[in-house]
Amino acid sequence: MINTLYLPEIREMLAAQDSAGLAEFCTALHPARTAEFMEGLTPEEAWQVLLHTDLRNRIEIYSYLDDDVQVQIVETAPPEEASELIADMPADDRVDLLNQVAPETVEQVMPLMPAEERRDIMRLSSYPEGTAGSLMTTDMAMLPESLTVRAAVEEVGRQSEEHETIYYIYIVDDDKHLRGLVSARQLVTHLNKPNMPLADLVERDLVTVVDTDDQETVAAKVADYDFLAIPVVDAERRLVGIITHDDIIDVMREEAEEDAYLAGGLEPLVGSYLETPWWELAWKRGLWLTVLFLAAVLTATTLKNYDTELDRVPWLVFFIPLVTSCGGNSGTQSTTLSIRALTNNDITPRDWWRVLRREVATGLCLGGFLAAIGFVVARLVEHEPAASDMLVVPVTLIGVVLCGSVIGSLLPLLFRRLGLDEALMSGPFLSGIIDILGIVIYMTVAISLLQDFSG
Amino acid sequence: MINTLYLPEIREMLAAQDSAGLAEFCTALHPARTAEFMEGLTPEEAWQVLLHTDLRNRIEIYSYLDDDVQVQIVETAPPEEASELIADMPADDRVDLLNQVAPETVEQVMPLMPAEERRDIMRLSSYPEGTAGSLMTTDMAMLPESLTVRAAVEEVGRQSEEHETIYYIYIVDDDKHLRGLVSARQLVTHLNKPNMPLADLVERDLVTVVDTDDQETVAAKVADYDFLAIPVVDAERRLVGIITHDDIIDVMREEAEEDAYLAGGLEPLVGSYLETPWWELAWKRGLWLTVLFLAAVLTATTLKNYDTELDRVPWLVFFIPLVTSCGGNSGTQSTTLSIRALTNNDITPRDWWRVLRREVATGLCLGGFLAAIGFVVARLVEHEPAASDMLVVPVTLIGVVLCGSVIGSLLPLLFRRLGLDEALMSGPFLSGIIDILGIVIYMTVAISLLQDFSG
Repeated sequence: MINTLYLPEIREMLAAQDSAGLAEFCTALHPARTAEFMEGLTPEEAWQVLLHTDLRNRIEIYSYLDDDVQVQIVETAPPEEASELIADMPADDRVDLLNQVAPETVEQVMPLMPAEERRDIMRLSSYPEGTAGSLMTTDMAMLPESLTVRAAVEEVGRQSEEHETIYYIYIVDDDKHLRGLVSARQLVTHLNKPNMPLADLVERDLVTVVDTDDQETVAAKVADYDFLAIPVVDAERRLVGIITHDDIIDVMREEAEEDAYLAGGLEPLVGSYLETPWWELAWKRGLWLTVLFLAAVLTATTLKNYDTELDRVPWLVFFIPLVTSCGGNSGTQSTTLSIRALTNNDITPRDWWRVLRREVATGLCLGGFLAAIGFVVARLVEHEPAASDMLVVPVTLIGVVLCGSVIGSLLPLLFRRLGLDEALMSGPFLSGIIDILGIVIYMTVAISLLQDFSG
Repeated sequence: MINTLYLPEIREMLAAQDSAGLAEFCTALHPARTAEFMEGLTPEEAWQVLLHTDLRNRIEIYSYLDDDVQVQIVETAPPEEASELIADMPADDRVDLLNQVAPETVEQVMPLMPAEERRDIMRLSSYPEGTAGSLMTTDMAMLPESLTVRAAVEEVGRQSEEHETIYYIYIVDDDKHLRGLVSARQLVTHLNKPNMPLADLVERDLVTVVDTDDQETVAAKVADYDFLAIPVVDAERRLVGIITHDDIIDVMREEAEEDAYLAGGLEPLVGSYLETPWWELAWKRGLWLTVLFLAAVLTATTLKNYDTELDRVPWLVFFIPLVTSCGGNSGTQSTTLSIRALTNNDITPRDWWRVLRREVATGLCLGGFLAAIGFVVARLVEHEPAASDMLVVPVTLIGVVLCGSVIGSLLPLLFRRLGLDEALMSGPFLSGIIDILGIVIYMTVAISLLQDFSG
């Protein structure tokens, strides 16, 4: 949502060329809040405002603007000014930005940047989306082991402006092989021993990720170990970057969002709900809805196979939605449990036998319970039923809840085993299978129990 | 999963009373990994191992053990040793721990702790679960504004051992009112100006949370502003604690898990899937399954009202599961979109009119598309249909997809407006309403279009 509170004042200051006022606006608040107040401005206006503060603060505020505003600004600002901004942005953010900017703009801006920055951008943008390499920044503090505490503190103070965090200082050899880590905390604590060799403070057992690792693996490691940042190494264990806690929080948000959309049967949105055009929403929903629809069509053909039975015992029809919905609901519960457990590494596909046993127990218990209620319901709907008639719905319920639980829990394991995304595939497959299976179980139970069909 | 790799060695060292070996084991690895290797030990064994390292490292390793192992250790260790451990634990963690420990143990341990720590525990445990106060730690670095940079660095170095983070230093007045913040980064950068007043470095526009704020609000603020830690103030703006990035990551994990379980129609699990007894799983699923079942029972009574119509046109039966499943699927999609948008503050209940318009457009578009496929399907299933017959299923599909989209998107807004948890309530209500409505729409369309019912 756009905060319009200060828009008139900002526009007035721009019109009056009130440099002092604009400079004050840029520095008075936390950059995230300044960005919030600027959201209603056009990209040109926003850029004019940002020119009234120093490069460092400009980058800070800019980084909190919405992604599309950032892109528009780079595309409309003079290339010299844009390249100055990009050259000093955090290494990971600028690669994300350039990936979204129009190719013409990239072509204009890139040659204006220092060769070193250009190389860094090329290297980082070569990592596929979703890998540790694509998340990392290359602006980390690196020092050789041979320094004293005093020299290290001085060096960190000198480099401070360039780095995304100085709270972890990485110790590397001449070839950039990662040797260990010293925290700023240890440095500050040992300031009273300025001649102590840095080597005495180095933590050597480091948890690292490889640049090709998946971002979910990275997030899990940082969350498990409570790190501020995690070092990224290449195949030769050379330090190539770090991933900081704020990027991890973004990854976790993104992954949770993605899982939520997939569980709801639609492709994840990129922007916010109201900003996404309705036809894009329809498109993102349409694919799964069609797949699910085609699966549901099979229920019609299945039912058609039982038309004589349904004709002979008309009340069977009444419970069809009840039966399919119970199967679907218990299946969805089991799928959810199974996907969560896989995501949290509580189970692997090898645990299928333990999962199966648990789901059989749970399914029988829940099915039995619903069957008891179903027995009462059947009694209420049919006024003078035969004893065997009254058992059809309860027995069916035990069957479908059991099947729903077992299939719902094993499908995600199967997809994981096949190397497919279980969060994406399990839902549609489950509802396709379970509705049809529910009808088949229902009809089979009816045919075996009902006197109308005997002989 | 338990890592049994080093268990025999650890047990051997314990049996041989190999103090040097155990001390080495406790310090050689990152505490999180040491904890992982200890997971197969009994609580008594684990405690014996931990006694071989200093208190600080002991607390570190202990904090990475599973929650139930932590509880068992405190309950079985000698009260003097347990109280020493608890007295030095981070203020937020020990309150969580003591909430889970048997009351007898708490009674034994508490009197053995210093009065100040005891008071701190009492105060923190008075905050309800899920508030900022219950998440925060009271171990933050606080300094008065009057210091110089040199004095501040010395003071921070001296206090360093006591604090959870020293990377943000909070500036308070004599009554602990929060005045601002200095980062360790700024201190390190200005070490070459030791006599600079701290006041010159203070960042005064702080984003804070109040101790009674909800944890979701806190997580959103930290994520938006990329903070390492956020200060918690009381109603008089006195600094009472801080919440650090690692606790925020835990909150985000927890909230995402909770939403995923609720979307799947079951109560969130506390432990891991395999560790939760199957009857507890059945219990957590049983409530919602029963609610959904009772809603589904209404479909049976609804269908019973249409028994003459179904009798007269038997093929109508075949498409009942298709109709209800299309309504349910489009409804689930819309509910998911609406819940995500509410959670991310992209919409509020006041936006209902904009949401409604979008969902009508999306629903008509998707319904129309499915209707087109449905038309073909109806043609395939019925071999020589009358023209009006062939329109029943397509027209119904447009109606149910539209209704599913509209109701699915508005239900979460309604629950939010009523102050209820939309993630918890929307699913069951939706499936209860949409199945019945689907049947009513289907039958109404059939009665109006089919020649069998005319006159």
